[in-house]
Parts: sequence; C-alpha cells; structure tokens
Amino acid sequence: MTISDCSERELIARIQARLPPPPDWLLVGIGDDAAVVEPERNRAEVLTVDALVEGVHFDRAFVPPDAIGHRALAVNLSDLAAMGAAPRLALLSLALPPGLLIADFDGLVAGIAALAERTRVHVVGGNLTRSTGPLMIDISLTGTVKPRQVLKRSGARPGDTLYVSGTIGAAAVGLMMLRNSTTHPKRSTTGDMKDTEEQSRSGNVLTSVSPVVERCIQRYLRPEPRVRLGLMLARNRAASACMDLSDGLSDAVYQIAAASGVGARIDAGALPIEPCAREVFAARGADPVTEAITGGDDYELLVAVRPRTRGRLAAAIRHGGVPLTRIGVCTEDRAVVLSRDGGDTPLPGGGYSHFRSAEASSLDHARDDPARVEGSRAT
Amino acid sequence: MTISDCSERELIARIQARLPPPPDWLLVGIGDDAAVVEPERNRAEVLTVDALVEGVHFDRAFVPPDAIGHRALAVNLSDLAAMGAAPRLALLSLALPPGLLIADFDGLVAGIAALAERTRVHVVGGNLTRSTGPLMIDISLTGTVKPRQVLKRSGARPGDTLYVSGTIGAAAVGLMMLRNSTTHPKRSTTGDMKDTEEQSRSGNVLTSVSPVVERCIQRYLRPEPRVRLGLMLARNRAASACMDLSDGLSDAVYQIAAASGVGARIDAGALPIEPCAREVFAARGADPVTEAITGGDDYELLVAVRPRTRGRLAAAIRHGGVPLTRIGVCTEDRAVVLSRDGGDTPLPGGGYSHFRSAEASSLDHARDDPARVEGSRAT
Repeated sequence: MTISDCSERELIARIQARLPPPPDWLLVGIGDDAAVVEPERNRAEVLTVDALVEGVHFDRAFVPPDAIGHRALAVNLSDLAAMGAAPRLALLSLALPPGLLIADFDGLVAGIAALAERTRVHVVGGNLTRSTGPLMIDISLTGTVKPRQVLKRSGARPGDTLYVSGTIGAAAVGLMMLRNSTTHPKRSTTGDMKDTEEQSRSGNVLTSVSPVVERCIQRYLRPEPRVRLGLMLARNRAASACMDLSDGLSDAVYQIAAASGVGARIDAGALPIEPCAREVFAARGADPVTEAITGGDDYELLVAVRPRTRGRLAAAIRHGGVPLTRIGVCTEDRAVVLSRDGGDTPLPGGGYSHFRSAEASSLDHARDDPARVEGSRAT
Repeated sequence: MTISDCSERELIARIQARLPPPPDWLLVGIGDDAAVVEPERNRAEVLTVDALVEGVHFDRAFVPPDAIGHRALAVNLSDLAAMGAAPRLALLSLALPPGLLIADFDGLVAGIAALAERTRVHVVGGNLTRSTGPLMIDISLTGTVKPRQVLKRSGARPGDTLYVSGTIGAAAVGLMMLRNSTTHPKRSTTGDMKDTEEQSRSGNVLTSVSPVVERCIQRYLRPEPRVRLGLMLARNRAASACMDLSDGLSDAVYQIAAASGVGARIDAGALPIEPCAREVFAARGADPVTEAITGGDDYELLVAVRPRTRGRLAAAIRHGGVPLTRIGVCTEDRAVVLSRDGGDTPLPGGGYSHFRSAEASSLDHARDDPARVEGSRAT
C-alpha cells in the first residue's frame, strides 16, 4: 500500500494518531487555516527551519524511514540547542513521492514523533504535498529562551577556552559504512541484492558489523541533539559563544572565529575523536584528525568559555548529559590554526564551498550540509 | 549563469540585499544558528506553512519566477488572513535544482520580497538546499492576533449569513489559459516553440490576449491575499467563522459547515463570478457556476456573519479593501446545497479527494490544492 491509496485526511489522521494530547498553550490546533498558540511569558522566541532532501541529505536505500524522521527533527533541535533555547513547537511540511509506502510514511512520522515527545516539541500544524521527485521533509521549529541568555556565535574573546561536546568523527564513518554496504551489496551476509535492500530499510545493512562500527552507524542514523546541554549553558551563562557542528568541527571553529572577530588554536592531541572512527580512518590510510574535524553530522556543540566563568561551566556539564572536552583557545590574531607536533598549520576545512558541490546551506548559518549522499566536499 | 556558479553565501547575500533593514523586534537575524525574536505583547501567535512544488503547484514553463515567489508567500498570507492575524515574520526554505538560472533565483526572491514588504513580513531566516528534482519553495509564516479575535472555522450558527470577498473563477480560467498556451504553442503570435518559452518566462504567454483574459491570468499568477480584510473582520469581531478559498468556494463552504456543525444554502444567482471567467466557461460549454465554485486559487475569504452583527461588518467592508457579496445562509439541517432555479441540489465539489489526484493538503486544513498542473480533480 502506498500513500496514493490514502486520502490526505487519512494521512493526517495517521500523523495525529502519533501526537500526544495538545498542550494548554495550543489555542487552535490542526484543522483550521493555521495554528494559534499562546506565547511563553518573558521569553524571546527562537526560530529555525531545515530541510532534508532525498538524494542530497539521505538515501532511502540505507537510511530507514524512522531515522529520516529522527534526523529531520534532530538537525533543527541542534540549532535550537546551539542558541540555548528550550524547544516548543514544530510545523511539518512533507513533499511525498506518490509511490511512498504507507509503512515508510508511518515510519517517518514515528521517527519524528518519538524524538518530539522526548524533547517536548508539539507538532501544531504543517502541510502535505505530492512530490514529482524526491522525498523532502521540511521542519520549522520554534523554542524559547530568556533574552539575556541567548547563546550567539559572536561573543568569543581572545583567551576564551574552546570546548566540544561528546565525540567527533563517528557519524562520518557511519555514513561511509552505510554507503559502502549499498555500493557493494556482496558485503552483506546473503550477497543478495533484494535482501540487502530489505535489510537496509530496517537499518540492518551490515548484519555482520562489529558493535563498534554499529555505534558509528547509529551516530549517523540517529544523532542526539544536545538540547539539555544548550539549556544548561544558557541558564548558567557559562558560554561566551556557541554553535552546533552540523558541518563539522572545523567549520564551526571558523564560523565562531569569524563572527567573534578572533582567531583560534585547536590542539590536535586533545580532540575527542571517537575511537572506532579513528581506527577506521587510520585503516583507510586517511588522517583521523583531518577526517574527524571536517566530517559532519555529529551534531555536537562547540562552546567558547571565558576563563573566569569556568566554575559556571562545571554546573552545566554536570547537568548537560554529555561530557565537554577542552580542545583549544581563542586568540588575538585572526588565524585559525591546528596545533600539532609542536607546529601550527591552518586548520583544514576552511573556506567557502560552492552550491554545486555543497548540497545545503542555511540562511541562519550559511552552511553546507555534510550529510551529502553524492558529490564531494568543496573545501 | 546558474546557481551552481554561486556559493551559498553569495545566494544568501542576494536574498539579504532584497530585505529591508531588520525590525527592532529581531534580536538575532540571519547569520547565527537560528533567529531570535521578541514576541508581540498580549497577542496570540498564528503559525502556518505551505509548500509550492514544481510540477504540482506551478509550471515554470508558464509561471514567471517572481509570480512563483509571490504565490508561495501569498498562499501563506491567505491562511493568516483567514485567522484574522497580522503577518509578522517568515522562514524561507528553498530546494533548488542546480541548473536554476541566477536570474530566475533573483526573480523568485524578488517576488517574495515585494509581497513581504507590502504586507510587513520580515524574512528572519531559512534554509537553502540543492534539489535532485523539482524546485520547491516552503514558507513558514507567523502572525499575531488578539486571542479573543481569532477567526475560526467553527463558529457559524444556523441563520448566519455567508459572504465571499472579491470575485471567483478568474484564477481557474487564468490557469487554463496559461496551460493551453504551452500545450498549443502555435497559438502564440510567432508559432515558435522557443519564443513561446521565453515569453512564458516573462509572463507574456499570450501576446494577443484581451485585457479581460489577461486579468484572469494575473489573478492566477499574482493572487492578492485578503490580509487587510481579515484584520478588519477580527478587529470588529464581525465574523462568526472564516476561512480562505484556496481550494475553491465549494470546499470552503463544506469545511465551515462541517467545523461548525451546520448546513448551508448557497444562492447560485448571487455568486460573484468574474465576468471574464463566466464568459470563458460558457464558451467552452461548461457550467459557469460549477466551474467557479470548484475552481481554486482565488484566495478570497468566505465569512459567516451573525444577523445582529451586520453593522460591524459594514465597518470591516469599508476598510477591508475588497467588496463582500452575500451568497447564502447557514442552516439548521446539515445539508450543504446549491439553490438554483427554485430548487436545491447538493453543492457540487463535496467529498474527500485522494492523495493521488489531489496534489496537496494541509495539516492545518486538510485540503487538496487546486493549483495543480497535472491530474484531475477528485470530487
């Protein structure tokens, strides 16, 4: 059964069935010309939108529907986290190829709904349309933050310490593994193309992968946006600047440096590269440091901290749900460098990329999205 | 020159160049992880999203880029108007085929920017991505309204009078004319296919059309959302129910009747069918009434009014910028009928349509969008 067999009302009913009861601030919900909500008192509102396009940001051959839904919401949640905002509501705009299986539609919605519930986001409205081409998921997300607690990119000063949350490099390895598994279907346990496809849909492309590689794959498929950490950093006023790593650590360092008018020195030896990722990069003859800082999709946070507010940072780390690692420092001169083996070189991955090879960018943060399925990085 | 020749920063700069200076309520604008805005005091917030997909909602062969941009914003403004809300801000998400001409990109943005300026909407952020298929424009729009003034669909009661703004049927005729001009390129003055295409891009498909037909074409290409009328109806508390005609008058009558739990009797003789549209429908042997009430894209408002509040309506009409025509009445029994030649028949165009034949629908108002380029109406 495909979505062509359903009326739009039936599809909307399938979405509504997965939504929790409406919150009391929702004055008019799904079913009128637009949604009406009561604003939260004494809070500024934070708004972002991101789109996932099939063939650009994901490949249905190896990303299961619920992971597509999860990712579509996660990339937006990550943007709110980087502003220190508490997520509040979402508008969901889906462009669906008519041949999309109902089971896949349900999976997509389930992926969005599960992450929404966990992060207290309510879907207040949206739009369904047919697509003449790829599947596209566009999510607009709003959140709230006290005006004085907004985490901008522009507040870093020379002498501020740079921290990154969690680990980096795993998602890039996960994507590489998933891609290879479809390029070389013989690598699957059965060697049968059809079986491989079916396994892909359920997220089990590599039935014989080690738990370590599986961890990398899950980091790509179901990134965990650092909502709680962002909130804690904002409440404690512990960060002088913050942004998320949607395009990789290197890009984030360049962006914060440019927005703040500072330079940065990153200590290669301090980088929290996921061990499995380091292993895979090294086995392929690639430099783990370069790969880990230019690979995207990690959705961690890069945070600048004033030396005198490190005490506040400790509290944020305690309740943020994810470790922070000190990776470098902001500098007076405007150079952005990698410190390694006693010498400084320009941090790899700087520079602007072209629309042709960089599949996505944002009015919010002028990025090229690294979750690309085709094309190569323009750095 | 196509968008592939530009970096995403250059494309974003081209958008920013067309935006007015940021309003004082915009605390963080384009250039950070997300936009931050100050909420308007004592107002509820109204949110909506609509997507225009190439090949579903428009055809680039005969809809010029600025009209695509205009329409993408207009359909959202129309939803806000139907809630009685004052538009405030927009997030813009564009999925662009790499071969899109820069001139067309600029035209698209110009169409959005011009209507945004006129309706006091500020673009606070968004997203650019490559599309592997059609051009897609997704606009999320927010506005504000006093909580007690929200215009819902559900407030109509038996005895309320039904009004429609402006005229109906013109946009459907305009779309028909534009389609025919590309299906039968010989109809153009030159008979040359390439010339026709170029003329299409500039919006001058039919170089020999009468001013009357040109008016219908413009109604399709550049619909005027009834923002001012919606605001006036809300402020005067003149309407018991309201919705826009994105899917045609008939659909709107059915929706308001269902949401309010009433029936409706529409007087065929009272319908404000655009004269040029009536002429074209009749010349094609079609029933002008049926065509005009089931044709979409008019983006007028359907309004229910209590008999005792007609005085308030007069003030709304005086300042709403568009005439209202009384077309029928809400009834006690649940039937929705067309009154014509002394007899009542079910209003044509009722019933739910399938996703397969109805290209768009909305979580907000479960509609099938009539701006379809292919497929036929499922009624």
